[in-house]
Amino acid sequence: MRIHIVNPNTTRAFTEKIARAAAAVKLAETELLVTQSAMGPVSIEGYYDEAFSVPGLLQQVREAEAKSVSGHVIACFDDTGLDAARSIANAPVIGIGEAGYHAASMIAGKFSVVTTLSRSIPAIEHNLVRYGLMSRCARVRASEVPVLDLEDAKPDALAMISNEIARAKEEDGAEAIVLGCAGMADLAASMAKTHGLPVIDGVTAAVTLIEALARLGLKTSKLGGYAAPRHKSYTGMFSSFAP
Amino acid sequence: MRIHIVNPNTTRAFTEKIARAAAAVKLAETELLVTQSAMGPVSIEGYYDEAFSVPGLLQQVREAEAKSVSGHVIACFDDTGLDAARSIANAPVIGIGEAGYHAASMIAGKFSVVTTLSRSIPAIEHNLVRYGLMSRCARVRASEVPVLDLEDAKPDALAMISNEIARAKEEDGAEAIVLGCAGMADLAASMAKTHGLPVIDGVTAAVTLIEALARLGLKTSKLGGYAAPRHKSYTGMFSSFAP
Amino acid sequence: MRIHIVNPNTTRAFTEKIARAAAAVKLAETELLVTQSAMGPVSIEGYYDEAFSVPGLLQQVREAEAKSVSGHVIACFDDTGLDAARSIANAPVIGIGEAGYHAASMIAGKFSVVTTLSRSIPAIEHNLVRYGLMSRCARVRASEVPVLDLEDAKPDALAMISNEIARAKEEDGAEAIVLGCAGMADLAASMAKTHGLPVIDGVTAAVTLIEALARLGLKTSKLGGYAAPRHKSYTGMFSSFAP
Amino acid sequence: MRIHIVNPNTTRAFTEKIARAAAAVKLAETELLVTQSAMGPVSIEGYYDEAFSVPGLLQQVREAEAKSVSGHVIACFDDTGLDAARSIANAPVIGIGEAGYHAASMIAGKFSVVTTLSRSIPAIEHNLVRYGLMSRCARVRASEVPVLDLEDAKPDALAMISNEIARAKEEDGAEAIVLGCAGMADLAASMAKTHGLPVIDGVTAAVTLIEALARLGLKTSKLGGYAAPRHKSYTGMFSSFAP
Amino acid sequence: MRIHIVNPNTTRAFTEKIARAAAAVKLAETELLVTQSAMGPVSIEGYYDEAFSVPGLLQQVREAEAKSVSGHVIACFDDTGLDAARSIANAPVIGIGEAGYHAASMIAGKFSVVTTLSRSIPAIEHNLVRYGLMSRCARVRASEVPVLDLEDAKPDALAMISNEIARAKEEDGAEAIVLGCAGMADLAASMAKTHGLPVIDGVTAAVTLIEALARLGLKTSKLGGYAAPRHKSYTGMFSSFAP
Amino acid sequence: MRIHIVNPNTTRAFTEKIARAAAAVKLAETELLVTQSAMGPVSIEGYYDEAFSVPGLLQQVREAEAKSVSGHVIACFDDTGLDAARSIANAPVIGIGEAGYHAASMIAGKFSVVTTLSRSIPAIEHNLVRYGLMSRCARVRASEVPVLDLEDAKPDALAMISNEIARAKEEDGAEAIVLGCAGMADLAASMAKTHGLPVIDGVTAAVTLIEALARLGLKTSKLGGYAAPRHKSYTGMFSSFAP
Repeated sequence: MRIHIVNPNTTRAFTEKIARAAAAVKLAETELLVTQSAMGPVSIEGYYDEAFSVPGLLQQVREAEAKSVSGHVIACFDDTGLDAARSIANAPVIGIGEAGYHAASMIAGKFSVVTTLSRSIPAIEHNLVRYGLMSRCARVRASEVPVLDLEDAKPDALAMISNEIARAKEEDGAEAIVLGCAGMADLAASMAKTHGLPVIDGVTAAVTLIEALARLGLKTSKLGGYAAPRHKSYTGMFSSFAP
Repeated sequence: MRIHIVNPNTTRAFTEKIARAAAAVKLAETELLVTQSAMGPVSIEGYYDEAFSVPGLLQQVREAEAKSVSGHVIACFDDTGLDAARSIANAPVIGIGEAGYHAASMIAGKFSVVTTLSRSIPAIEHNLVRYGLMSRCARVRASEVPVLDLEDAKPDALAMISNEIARAKEEDGAEAIVLGCAGMADLAASMAKTHGLPVIDGVTAAVTLIEALARLGLKTSKLGGYAAPRHKSYTGMFSSFAP
Repeated sequence: MRIHIVNPNTTRAFTEKIARAAAAVKLAETELLVTQSAMGPVSIEGYYDEAFSVPGLLQQVREAEAKSVSGHVIACFDDTGLDAARSIANAPVIGIGEAGYHAASMIAGKFSVVTTLSRSIPAIEHNLVRYGLMSRCARVRASEVPVLDLEDAKPDALAMISNEIARAKEEDGAEAIVLGCAGMADLAASMAKTHGLPVIDGVTAAVTLIEALARLGLKTSKLGGYAAPRHKSYTGMFSSFAP
Repeated sequence: MRIHIVNPNTTRAFTEKIARAAAAVKLAETELLVTQSAMGPVSIEGYYDEAFSVPGLLQQVREAEAKSVSGHVIACFDDTGLDAARSIANAPVIGIGEAGYHAASMIAGKFSVVTTLSRSIPAIEHNLVRYGLMSRCARVRASEVPVLDLEDAKPDALAMISNEIARAKEEDGAEAIVLGCAGMADLAASMAKTHGLPVIDGVTAAVTLIEALARLGLKTSKLGGYAAPRHKSYTGMFSSFAP
Repeated sequence: MRIHIVNPNTTRAFTEKIARAAAAVKLAETELLVTQSAMGPVSIEGYYDEAFSVPGLLQQVREAEAKSVSGHVIACFDDTGLDAARSIANAPVIGIGEAGYHAASMIAGKFSVVTTLSRSIPAIEHNLVRYGLMSRCARVRASEVPVLDLEDAKPDALAMISNEIARAKEEDGAEAIVLGCAGMADLAASMAKTHGLPVIDGVTAAVTLIEALARLGLKTSKLGGYAAPRHKSYTGMFSSFAP
Repeated sequence: MRIHIVNPNTTRAFTEKIARAAAAVKLAETELLVTQSAMGPVSIEGYYDEAFSVPGLLQQVREAEAKSVSGHVIACFDDTGLDAARSIANAPVIGIGEAGYHAASMIAGKFSVVTTLSRSIPAIEHNLVRYGLMSRCARVRASEVPVLDLEDAKPDALAMISNEIARAKEEDGAEAIVLGCAGMADLAASMAKTHGLPVIDGVTAAVTLIEALARLGLKTSKLGGYAAPRHKSYTGMFSSFAP
């Protein structure tokens, strides 16, 4: 089966890290199609960046659909553009935030999220409320490490993330941790070992979950909000994106 | 005071209808700046259209901010791009859906929403949950009248909307109705008269509420998710939108 | 338009402070009718005081209705008697607590309330739950300043309130503050300046919001719990209040 | 032990019906003190009546406290003035609505309420939300029988109530019924027999529950919103009610 | 009336403590039938112990039903097997956890629970959510005193429990405390005195509440999930338990 | 990897149907260990049956743990004994109900459940609330087909299930269906085709999801309620089950 993973930011090193994490966990028979948005922000930190990452992401989803993929993964922890992507996909689509929450919910009573900047907390909380899983989340925490600082895996950044995990365990009663950024994909194993609790990276969780849905033959339902867009004109720089 | 109203779709007749509705209710001392997205869908019906209406909308918000407006109204009932707009605005920003829900909550115990197509229901419900007002909403109903059919005010379209209002009153126990599309702005008075209950149009509600906030001197808080975007590069067709 | 503001306590200095705050923000064309309950407690601090402030408040609402007002403001942060007032009013009625929460919800993701005594916290929380806006409130805090101590604006009282605002910002992650007493109306501007976040006074918020509803021509819905009282006898000291 | 039951309306026949229902279920060792408000509405149907029934009710509670009662029952299904009564009582206080919900929650998964007029539904729903038991309530239904019509137990009134119970069982999946008016106290047994499910009358439920709390030696907590009222002046017709 | 109290653990000293607590509060006319599970864990601390305490508990409930009891009390704070017990009982059944929450809800706005080990917290929280009373609970706290250590009432154990009560009052704003283990039944009075707030023991609360329900003639509803088990075969060591 | 699937009822034909469904979807490299409870009810229909299916189920989980399995599936839609199983498993454990809800949540906005008998509805609803996914469930419906009737796949049974699916689509606005019994595992494909929406069988969903979790190397967290049972004595027929 062919699985599409799209990085909605435009930083090549980020896409490569995602591809490595995905490759390490995918099924042997899975062919990964890892893409990156062709336009928009180099990192997604807050609502404004998110808005400009969606069109490029949708372009990649549309092109991947034409290549008969069995599933899509949106590799940004905000689950950027998830609803819009579902409306143009027949294959199932999951975000890495969503994947992390579902995985955590199946191995622990309560989990905490440790993300990058505090400005991203409200969007993550909104997602948790919409998915229904807010009651399973003890707290969404920010390490205050900017997204692109994760590229260098500086000791400082690691310490700040590790410190938040320790506080989540101690103060929130978290039984598991969901790492709140695609750029943290390489930290799950070591953080789990250090802190003695399950630490979930959304990228790898999303790859295995989308493979699971695909193997079940499940498609995105077209009965509600994910119905295919109606035909109509788009104007200006988006005219070629008209459904 | 100067108030900015942005129509995030690209249909001129729609913008004009919005401008007329706003002009009819604004304060004498208010100068209206009514704009329209320069790119994107001719109507917003579902998540995909919404995604492509946000960049153009944000462009208008940014330009209006430079003109010292005291408030912004997003004139699409999905409250398209509301969070992103707030992150680049110092002035308060409200969506017409949000305005309708708040107004209804202050004059009735429970209200129902009557919108256009059923595919828009989930996005409206998500907004109600996020705003906290879902418990005040008896039901979100679709009249199945497409957005642009509202332009012609065909008797059929009116009958379909009127019929849903009747059912909301009878079946949901709705004490007030919020009309779920900017294109229904001209129907509130006649529907209220026909059905004997308050019927709220979001455009006019938003104009008076944003004037209220502006007169209080309130600004959008910059402490949480609405912090100004961080400086960074945007690539491709969005390079000029970089914060 | 004529707007009625009723102070449900019987302290003249309080009514005057409310009148000053309202006058400073009202529209030029608005005529304010500021009244005060003719009987009951000199300040409202808890459920018992509240119970004895309602009859006098309703008397003022009834008399104001006879003077064709376009809206009523209940100038106590507990939103004392709000439901009963709506049942005898055709014009819209809003409480200053309610007004503060709605205004805060439109400019911030989460707000905290800073009120007078901790005994008032449960009633405020009940209101937030009923209005649906509890999910938008980070915390309701008490400064432990009694209501009438606000009259003198003693430095001590100011410091106690300021301290709670600082804690709300730090500990609750509040993005805005709603001041929880009509007697704090004169503190909003200075507290906002000191703490660098929006601080909302309910009195001024209520005045601009009721003007907004009135300009929309909205009336209190009579379909549900706000239906006009049924005719019947009242006995004893309340015989003249029979509907 | 001495238990105080207060009817907050001023209809003697109502008080007598309550007294009979209570007498039939009380413990042998319990002395009932059944009182009636000395002023206010002859029946409580909606928020306005409720407001004018509270002062007279509180007067009875205060006088009963002076007689060393071990508990108070507020015999109106709206649980009129419950919070204010608790603030002046050391003994526990329960409302008959509250009692009915708690009893139903201990013998059934979900219950429906069948009350008098639909205007009372919102107040009952608010109470259920505050008590936390809304999730246990399938639906609050109105029979549209006015309170005082229950006095005559007309066949019509009985049929309307019976019909709502049938619908609650069929349409709501209700496993038990809570009768929503003190005036229905004499109907529980026959309705239970007719419909084959538990039917709970709040008056008798409240008597046995308050006896249970009293026998446990429990008092109303004075730590939060039920703290004793602060000393202060009341003016006008309420001057003698000052705490 | 005859009331059945079952201790679902197999420790005789525990059963005796429960019997003493119950005897001290029961009505004179109540005959107590205190039983103990004939098989399973000596104490119930977590989900695994709970699973093995249910069959023995149900055996006692079934035998007691044959003796025409008017009600059953499950004397474990987890309300072990409550739903299954209700499905084989015509008489009402209440758990001591459930009883404690209901009693606390009638005398205080918010309560905290102080239980034994932290591993029991999630099960208690699940119960509170199911009963609907989670919104009334400020926090569930563990004293980290194992169940059987309560038998000896060691000063250390008492100090640890007392310390959690102090923190609940201070940190949670708890207005009342529910003691979270049948083995704490003898501590309520002294802890209430020490800390100056109502402290509720579930055993005594359950006895008085089940007497209340029994005196009302209420039975467990058989319309929903508590319908009598269908006839069928059970195999192996459970063959004699077949319904 | 080795995956353990346990049928907690004692009907061989049921276990075989589950094994066939699982075998059809498992990864090539997965070795299935399909077991069946050695004692207890032949089918699980309600709380009483559930109670007697847990000990046998836990026995199978314990034995499978000793064989180094990478995950456990509990093949009863009530997710019987899930919490207790997690407390004795290091490998992850998921129930087929839980699996169905998570899968449905990733491909549809709202789903309905179609189960066997209405007496099972409350237990399913409790699970949905605990998992956090109740807000994603439009309605839990009963087809009134008893569990063992599914063995014969009688046309009547199929028609009753199909009819409920049709009603879920029409009346609930369900976008996907979760089949509410392990015995319906063979119906998903045909029902999906007939009704034109995704239909999810919990058995196959659980197999692919547990494989996903296992491949991620995730274990059940031992920090909260799933901590290993404490050592202690069990008496009577359960003495050999002591932890």
